[in-house]
Amino acid sequence: MLHWDMSAMMPSGGYEARTEQLTALNAIAHNQLTAKDMPDLLDAADADTSLNSWQMTNLKEIRQTLLKATALSESLVEALTRASAACEEKWRAARPDNDYASILPELNTLLDLVRETGQAKADVLGLDLHDAMLDDFEPGGRVAEIDILFDDLSAFLPEFIGQVLEHQASKPVPIMPKGPFPIEKQQTLGKHFMKTLGFDFDHGRLDVSLHPFCGGVPDDVRITTRYDEEDFTSALMGILHETGHALYERGLPKEWRTQPVGQSLGMSTHESQSLLIEMQVCRSAAFLEYASPIMKETMGGSGPMWETDNLLRLYSNVKPDFIRVDADEVTYPAHVILRHRIEKSVISGNLLLQDLPGAWNDGMEELLGITPPDDRLGCLQDVHWYDGAWGYFPTYTLGAMTAAQLYHAAKQQDSSIEAEISKGNFCAAINLASKKCSQQGSFCYAARDID
Amino acid sequence: MLHWDMSAMMPSGGYEARTEQLTALNAIAHNQLTAKDMPDLLDAADADTSLNSWQMTNLKEIRQTLLKATALSESLVEALTRASAACEEKWRAARPDNDYASILPELNTLLDLVRETGQAKADVLGLDLHDAMLDDFEPGGRVAEIDILFDDLSAFLPEFIGQVLEHQASKPVPIMPKGPFPIEKQQTLGKHFMKTLGFDFDHGRLDVSLHPFCGGVPDDVRITTRYDEEDFTSALMGILHETGHALYERGLPKEWRTQPVGQSLGMSTHESQSLLIEMQVCRSAAFLEYASPIMKETMGGSGPMWETDNLLRLYSNVKPDFIRVDADEVTYPAHVILRHRIEKSVISGNLLLQDLPGAWNDGMEELLGITPPDDRLGCLQDVHWYDGAWGYFPTYTLGAMTAAQLYHAAKQQDSSIEAEISKGNFCAAINLASKKCSQQGSFCYAARDID
Repeated sequence: MLHWDMSAMMPSGGYEARTEQLTALNAIAHNQLTAKDMPDLLDAADADTSLNSWQMTNLKEIRQTLLKATALSESLVEALTRASAACEEKWRAARPDNDYASILPELNTLLDLVRETGQAKADVLGLDLHDAMLDDFEPGGRVAEIDILFDDLSAFLPEFIGQVLEHQASKPVPIMPKGPFPIEKQQTLGKHFMKTLGFDFDHGRLDVSLHPFCGGVPDDVRITTRYDEEDFTSALMGILHETGHALYERGLPKEWRTQPVGQSLGMSTHESQSLLIEMQVCRSAAFLEYASPIMKETMGGSGPMWETDNLLRLYSNVKPDFIRVDADEVTYPAHVILRHRIEKSVISGNLLLQDLPGAWNDGMEELLGITPPDDRLGCLQDVHWYDGAWGYFPTYTLGAMTAAQLYHAAKQQDSSIEAEISKGNFCAAINLASKKCSQQGSFCYAARDID
Repeated sequence: MLHWDMSAMMPSGGYEARTEQLTALNAIAHNQLTAKDMPDLLDAADADTSLNSWQMTNLKEIRQTLLKATALSESLVEALTRASAACEEKWRAARPDNDYASILPELNTLLDLVRETGQAKADVLGLDLHDAMLDDFEPGGRVAEIDILFDDLSAFLPEFIGQVLEHQASKPVPIMPKGPFPIEKQQTLGKHFMKTLGFDFDHGRLDVSLHPFCGGVPDDVRITTRYDEEDFTSALMGILHETGHALYERGLPKEWRTQPVGQSLGMSTHESQSLLIEMQVCRSAAFLEYASPIMKETMGGSGPMWETDNLLRLYSNVKPDFIRVDADEVTYPAHVILRHRIEKSVISGNLLLQDLPGAWNDGMEELLGITPPDDRLGCLQDVHWYDGAWGYFPTYTLGAMTAAQLYHAAKQQDSSIEAEISKGNFCAAINLASKKCSQQGSFCYAARDID
């Protein structure tokens, strides 16, 4: 909640006090987890022969969390929290100012602490550094496995992107509806689709932040977006993306809500849910058949650009561009592969942070054939590295792959899914591809070594 | 921050999760304060002969807080937090529904816990129950002293109110500017005066809640109001009131911010600061000379009702009415005396909660000659009793008395104060009557037995 507030509500002058609050809470949580009697309590629980598989899995999850936590001193946890808040705060100014140099001292401090934390976990988990960092976001994930997937993808993508662009060139050029689109109307439109998809406003909110995200707790899910008065599709797709995250959180098993096994199953699964809604469901012809008249009416639009076919071409338009969160489904993986490669170089010590902008621009040129004109459209665009989330990015593309497979499987199980979506009925899609997933919590993954 | 969010942002379905969060945090804070090594640490600190008077006062404050805290078990703290959140949540529906009966079970549970908590503190402090409850809001305050003041006041008030009403009748009847006044314009107006008074929006926010309040931390002060489209004066005066609280919080000594001696000096001092701004400064002829053209322009008003004289008559109009927060300076104490008398009866066991609405209405008739038509305008109007704040109300009138004395003293020290206010310059008033006060933290009070 404090994180949500920090991004969506807090005035800039509150950040010092907030950093202290977050630092104190993280330190307390760390101390409670690593309390002296915890191992005995766990042993006693393990000795109970009446436990069901959820309970056993839960204990296993606690042990894993504890193992990581005991590797860290309270002072390291505090220092990391402080450095991460300080660097994120700096990023908020550095991004609009296009000033990477200004953030470098904070980023170096933060990365040192991220590395120290990762190494401490790596030692107890018997992993190498990058794997240990990845493990926080993708439990059980390994860099070597991701490399296989990403190498495959980066070998396939350039030619495929070329084919897509060629195919696209034979079709009418999508026309962008002309703004300005008042923020209020964009909100109305976003909330309309959120409700249709099943977002419950008695248990959540929609607000504005610089970097859209989904936060809060399952009973009170807070999502954010950012509005562009010239382009209503950007905020809308952001809202639909975060709605996917929100539905997943909201659907986590209620009876395990306060236990590790009831939490989300890592970030790639989380991302599979947001992309299921954004990319699979809400960029489909079926969705636009239902949604385009509503978009047209809410925005008071008229003319051929509001036809379903045009909007579909607009929503599925492929164009190599600079911003990851605005990227289409085809070029998106290139953005992630770039970040994963840079993370590998930085974490292994082969790339210094001061050289990151250059490496970024070179990578964009190699993967997508374009060079960002500045760091605002380059390495400053995402908050992740600046709030300490190194090792996070691959989960986006792992999530995209999972989303496509989930939606494909759902359509095979129920052939009426697309017909229903075109009528604005998302029940079947949500039940088969989203609820089934969220109701597992982290049970599937964590249980795999038990049975 | 979580309390602010609960009132200003949280969707209704979040309250169970929020209750658990607040309960956990209160229990943790309680456990940290009452940790086993605390007495030894305090003894060691006391033995340090180099302490200055702020440090000594700080230690004294910690001992007092610890004394009260050790009187309470963790389970009692948890139960009270839970009951208070549950009852407040219920109140949010009971008030608009005008349904006192619906809240009675939660209120009875809450009062039992408030009483148990108060009695535990009373035992260690050597006070009787009501004094111990009062002490949480007015450190060192005693019911017997308040009774002397309030008896004096209630003997004086009825005749005085009569005189005021008679005098008022000889003047033109104030005319209420006609709405509707769009909420956006009211916000603009409120924020304008907040800024002029010195509220720093880099260190605070203005939002909306059912019951206006000031929350947050000194570096990030959150105030709220509620808007009435037919009457812009109500939200505006609420905003100015909370701005007074905010300026006090913001002005607390920075070097003692995380220590008890750096906290506010009880609720009557806090209230003296809000009433200094609302009642003393912002209902004065000087203020309206400056403010009325701005009000007129922002609201796009015209006609005689926007003249300074009329607005002054409106702002200083005396009328016995039902709602405390909307009451004028003259009838306000009657609202507080009523609540103080009811608290005495309830706490002593002479009045059962089920009979509270009747006692309320009888008291209103006796003190102000009017009977509320329903409990919404009667005993359901204020949140305090429903979130566990029994013993709080007298601080409003103690604060009003303090505010009048502070402003009087300030005007004696600097005779140009009112002339400056009429030009929109509040520096002298704020410096002499507000900053001097806030910069003391709770030092004055707590130090009085030391030197």
